[in-house]
Amino acid sequence: MRTQVAIIGAGPAGLLLGQLLHVAGIDNVIVERQTGDYVLGRIRAGVLEQVTMDLLKKAGVDARAHAEGLPHHGIELLFQGQRHRIDMHAHTHGRQVMVYGQTEVTRDLMEARAAAGLTTIYGAANVSLHDFDGERPRVRYEKDGATHELECDFIAGCDGYHGVSRASVPASAVKLYEKVYPFGWLGMLADVPPVSDELIYCNTPRGFALCSMRSRTRSRYYVQVPVEEKVENWSDDAFWNELRLRLDPEGRERLVTGPALEKSIAPLRSFVAEPMRFGRLFLAGDAAHIVPPTGAKGLNLAASDVGYLYQALERFYGERSSSALDRYSDLCLRRIWKAERFSWWFTSLMHRFPDTGDFGQKIQEAELDYLVHSPAAATSLSENYVGLPLESF
Amino acid sequence: MRTQVAIIGAGPAGLLLGQLLHVAGIDNVIVERQTGDYVLGRIRAGVLEQVTMDLLKKAGVDARAHAEGLPHHGIELLFQGQRHRIDMHAHTHGRQVMVYGQTEVTRDLMEARAAAGLTTIYGAANVSLHDFDGERPRVRYEKDGATHELECDFIAGCDGYHGVSRASVPASAVKLYEKVYPFGWLGMLADVPPVSDELIYCNTPRGFALCSMRSRTRSRYYVQVPVEEKVENWSDDAFWNELRLRLDPEGRERLVTGPALEKSIAPLRSFVAEPMRFGRLFLAGDAAHIVPPTGAKGLNLAASDVGYLYQALERFYGERSSSALDRYSDLCLRRIWKAERFSWWFTSLMHRFPDTGDFGQKIQEAELDYLVHSPAAATSLSENYVGLPLESF
Repeated sequence: MRTQVAIIGAGPAGLLLGQLLHVAGIDNVIVERQTGDYVLGRIRAGVLEQVTMDLLKKAGVDARAHAEGLPHHGIELLFQGQRHRIDMHAHTHGRQVMVYGQTEVTRDLMEARAAAGLTTIYGAANVSLHDFDGERPRVRYEKDGATHELECDFIAGCDGYHGVSRASVPASAVKLYEKVYPFGWLGMLADVPPVSDELIYCNTPRGFALCSMRSRTRSRYYVQVPVEEKVENWSDDAFWNELRLRLDPEGRERLVTGPALEKSIAPLRSFVAEPMRFGRLFLAGDAAHIVPPTGAKGLNLAASDVGYLYQALERFYGERSSSALDRYSDLCLRRIWKAERFSWWFTSLMHRFPDTGDFGQKIQEAELDYLVHSPAAATSLSENYVGLPLESF
Repeated sequence: MRTQVAIIGAGPAGLLLGQLLHVAGIDNVIVERQTGDYVLGRIRAGVLEQVTMDLLKKAGVDARAHAEGLPHHGIELLFQGQRHRIDMHAHTHGRQVMVYGQTEVTRDLMEARAAAGLTTIYGAANVSLHDFDGERPRVRYEKDGATHELECDFIAGCDGYHGVSRASVPASAVKLYEKVYPFGWLGMLADVPPVSDELIYCNTPRGFALCSMRSRTRSRYYVQVPVEEKVENWSDDAFWNELRLRLDPEGRERLVTGPALEKSIAPLRSFVAEPMRFGRLFLAGDAAHIVPPTGAKGLNLAASDVGYLYQALERFYGERSSSALDRYSDLCLRRIWKAERFSWWFTSLMHRFPDTGDFGQKIQEAELDYLVHSPAAATSLSENYVGLPLESF
């Protein structure tokens, strides 16, 4: 089999890239290790930047996100027992974010891909990448007892942190940057109405909490827990009780509880692999970088990588120029490091660290007090939260 | 002897308070452990906020600062070998800072105090504070072989971190917050023209450096050194060589070197004591808080404490109301914690820490890149650097 772009991974990054390339008239095949149902079963992010919405629109898959998504114009910060709203819309000349689950984005992209008759190979075992240092890369995989080979012009590695793409590059060619945080997020998904119309980020003596949502009837809540905590130790009741202790009186009163649809603990990590291009292999999304979820940047960064990559590939096929492909890694990394900085900063501001101490706690409170009273500081938070604009090639 | 306000310490905080009270018609006496020459010999800060200049004006001692000081509209940030200017004037609707040495401020205040015939007791030994929990506080000290007692309505503790004022309060009544940084600043004062018209803050692989000045012919330079470093290990040549290695090519070319007038190593520390009022004893300046010097906030915070304190005392004597005195500690601490936050942030952004690592270094560079390209972020830096406004009682 032969295609122009072989995409490794059928998560939102790979699917979005496939759709954008398809719209641009560029042939592509996705190779995915898991089944489609497995991919759809992953509960992940739920806040889309304008840049991400714009890319979904270009891909022709924004209709349901617009119809069912919840546009948010602000967030609330709760500290020292008081809530303060950051009006992001006002601070960014009318920009906003859209609350719409990653699962729904994935489903929409899968349906569009199926409707367009594009090839996705699910359940591909032992995927391996070859000859991407030359002009004829190949992807090999096993399926139904046979070994298959996919010839292509380019490989897009959209297969996440644990995927084969980054692992196919010699270790000496990649520089890794990493920071592991000494806590995790215990997350709960439940079909109960959200405690508030907007997200509430809580800095409390008991640790961080986040009141988020996926829709008007589905809530997503998180509480900071020690990194060694086990999800088995948390009954639904224990979760709701802990969350309640981190809310303000209004939140406690409005909180509606119910059985967990999903409950899990995610560790928090910052990670970047540089560069993101190796000959004709291009990494995008979690394959190249991880952010702690505090700034809601993970899915959005994957989308912006894909936004750069499809443009660069479009130029290659349209103008036979590889200059945009040559700039791909640098352009991505500038935006990624700013999002890494923002995610690290917002994480540091909102969580209790083992070494936060009394001084650190006062510094957090002073910064939060400053943030909610300085238009400049609130604008800085807002412009990062709604997403910095893509640069031009 | 009796006075209305006994001021402990004849540094800039005590002297400014004395002058402001005098202008307001409130009698005061300053008690200082050292000689006047000793106080004048201390080389300290050199960047005055607008708030500080306004207070000097109210005190009637701003003439020479205006005539000889250098108004600065911006600072330069040097990182990854490039300089970037932050136009603070443009970002704060025309505010600025004034470069004018603390030594000069002290001299101006001393001369004004002498001209007004106000009492300053220099060389007061074994100063002790008494009965400030009642309405008749007393200050006792020894001088010329005799013990003296100063009766007063209030005591203002302006005697610095090591002074007797804070030490006179029971430890159980004070909460201390502290952070010690794992490096110091090796400072050099020299009568050479500054390398640039504005201050240059340098983030370099060899550590932080600051190019500052006291006048057009007197430069003040600093390089970050390990906290255990000894000044005896640094010849003048060694200092200049190290500074040169932390500059950009233009800076290296323009650097004029010369013999040191003063050379010393200062540790960096953040420190706050809460509250700042104990009955009729009020702490102001370094007696209650220390900031690392990166944000040039130490002298300015002392001045703003004094700005609040003289207003509160003026209300007490004018309106026989102690409501402003009751709010003194809270109002000061709000501004202090924001300045502590800013100084900690700017210190963290510009220095190499033992645990900065590759990830931390990239985060610093991403933040600096963001700072110089985002008007919101540059405004936030600027409004803190020129000084947040005083609040009203």
